[in-house]
Amino acid sequence: MFSLPNNATIIEVGPRDGLQNEKQLVQTADKLAFIQALQHAGIQEMELTSFVSPKWVPQMADAKEIVKKSPKVGRQFVLTPNAKGVELALEAGAKSVAFFVGASNSFNQKNINRTTEESMENIAPLIRELKAQQVFIRACISTAFYCPYEGKVHPDVVIQLCKQFVELGVDELSVADTIGKANPVESYELFSALRKELPNTLLTAHFHDTRKLALANIYASLQAGISRFDTSAGGLGGCPFAPGATGNVATEDVVHLLDSLGIETGIDIDKVCQAVSYIEPHVSRPIETGMYKLFKTHSS
Amino acid sequence: MFSLPNNATIIEVGPRDGLQNEKQLVQTADKLAFIQALQHAGIQEMELTSFVSPKWVPQMADAKEIVKKSPKVGRQFVLTPNAKGVELALEAGAKSVAFFVGASNSFNQKNINRTTEESMENIAPLIRELKAQQVFIRACISTAFYCPYEGKVHPDVVIQLCKQFVELGVDELSVADTIGKANPVESYELFSALRKELPNTLLTAHFHDTRKLALANIYASLQAGISRFDTSAGGLGGCPFAPGATGNVATEDVVHLLDSLGIETGIDIDKVCQAVSYIEPHVSRPIETGMYKLFKTHSS
Repeated sequence: MFSLPNNATIIEVGPRDGLQNEKQLVQTADKLAFIQALQHAGIQEMELTSFVSPKWVPQMADAKEIVKKSPKVGRQFVLTPNAKGVELALEAGAKSVAFFVGASNSFNQKNINRTTEESMENIAPLIRELKAQQVFIRACISTAFYCPYEGKVHPDVVIQLCKQFVELGVDELSVADTIGKANPVESYELFSALRKELPNTLLTAHFHDTRKLALANIYASLQAGISRFDTSAGGLGGCPFAPGATGNVATEDVVHLLDSLGIETGIDIDKVCQAVSYIEPHVSRPIETGMYKLFKTHSS
Repeated sequence: MFSLPNNATIIEVGPRDGLQNEKQLVQTADKLAFIQALQHAGIQEMELTSFVSPKWVPQMADAKEIVKKSPKVGRQFVLTPNAKGVELALEAGAKSVAFFVGASNSFNQKNINRTTEESMENIAPLIRELKAQQVFIRACISTAFYCPYEGKVHPDVVIQLCKQFVELGVDELSVADTIGKANPVESYELFSALRKELPNTLLTAHFHDTRKLALANIYASLQAGISRFDTSAGGLGGCPFAPGATGNVATEDVVHLLDSLGIETGIDIDKVCQAVSYIEPHVSRPIETGMYKLFKTHSS
């Protein structure tokens, strides 16, 4: 057969990726309670917030306060889309930042009005500056399997982009199936190739559950030797291209998969579900993840 | 890597397993419309109904009419729990029947007040009689991974029970993770062992999606060479041991997984979703499967 890793790391993206598209503003205190409850559940790496313009993403207007008031547990990422974001993140005391670029050129053009090359030209000096200040850098590669405009994205395009980031000195690559269209064989093949090409870089898989394949894709990625997964408590956060569909794969369901396989995460599923129960009244969608439904049944 | 099958067969269990626990009686005409719509979608094997006592399962009181009026497409199973059920099934003209036995002794005792051995003693003469009449026989092994009373069920127990059925002459074994607790490695290992031990028997995997692992387990079973899967349109049917949790894995989501891997099923996902939309108003739970949600978004 194949060997699976003994340990895995969850990068919780709920407070940032999960909440950013919620139209109703979530109070800063509720976000902080959510973050603390997730830390209490054993989460050691988390995307906290995003230093974007509050004009574009009003939900993230409290980024500075979130960074300052979150208990300093493990690695805490903030998303920084540009030089201004980096400046504000550093001012707030962030020690780990995340950049996003699509693997698909059309996606970048439609999304941020820049080609992939132009995006990289913008990000490169920021990465160099942050490296000089010993900031941990996570590069998130969206549309790494399929693009809503271009369809299938060739693995070589993803691999080349990842290599560029590694040459710039990033510490981690989060490779994402943004529209939830990858299948397990594609997941296995891309992550196997990335591990081979970039053996010294932290590789993280980010799957969306739009078509319910996220856990199968995570299993296939484990078979490829991947042991870092972006997940969102309660499955919060959606894919903007498929309204009504599930977006991020749920932390509690992924931890259950890993638990069942005997892969250690240090995370307590019931406590993740407690964190979900704190945030549930503040979000617009019912939370329907497998383990959260069981949790509600057991605790009711 | 490993090779996946080129073709797969879906055994649709929605009309029987999916509807049997619905408290509100579904009209026979609505069931027949559902069955026909599923056939129209390309389903070639289906559990139609169950010849159980209407006292115990009022929803299946129209079994005879369902068998008589369903268009004769492919293989159509009826569940027969005992000699009376077999008699009624044959009277109605059924050509394929299914028997259920748990792999767990405690499960059988709690469920039907018989040990596994006593169950087999009851079923054996029925199977011999049906074989003599050239009826196709499907043996469904429930709790083949975990039992709600005993916990983990040892694979050897399952393998021995399966061998007993094969010696009796059954044509197909459907091996079920009744409470949705199996993980992908367990799925791979049990089905690999069964294929090795019983190379000449049709082997079908039946997964429940209670903890959202069904598609990962199906992927692992494909890796073990399994190409027959029990599924339920709309994910209809629940696991009585976990109220509020999802039960059967959804036909439309499994066909999508298979489609995405290039594995032929002959089934049209949109048409399965149309069948689901016909039955949705008649069942008690909102239907939240991945592909049905996308279907509703696209068709609204």
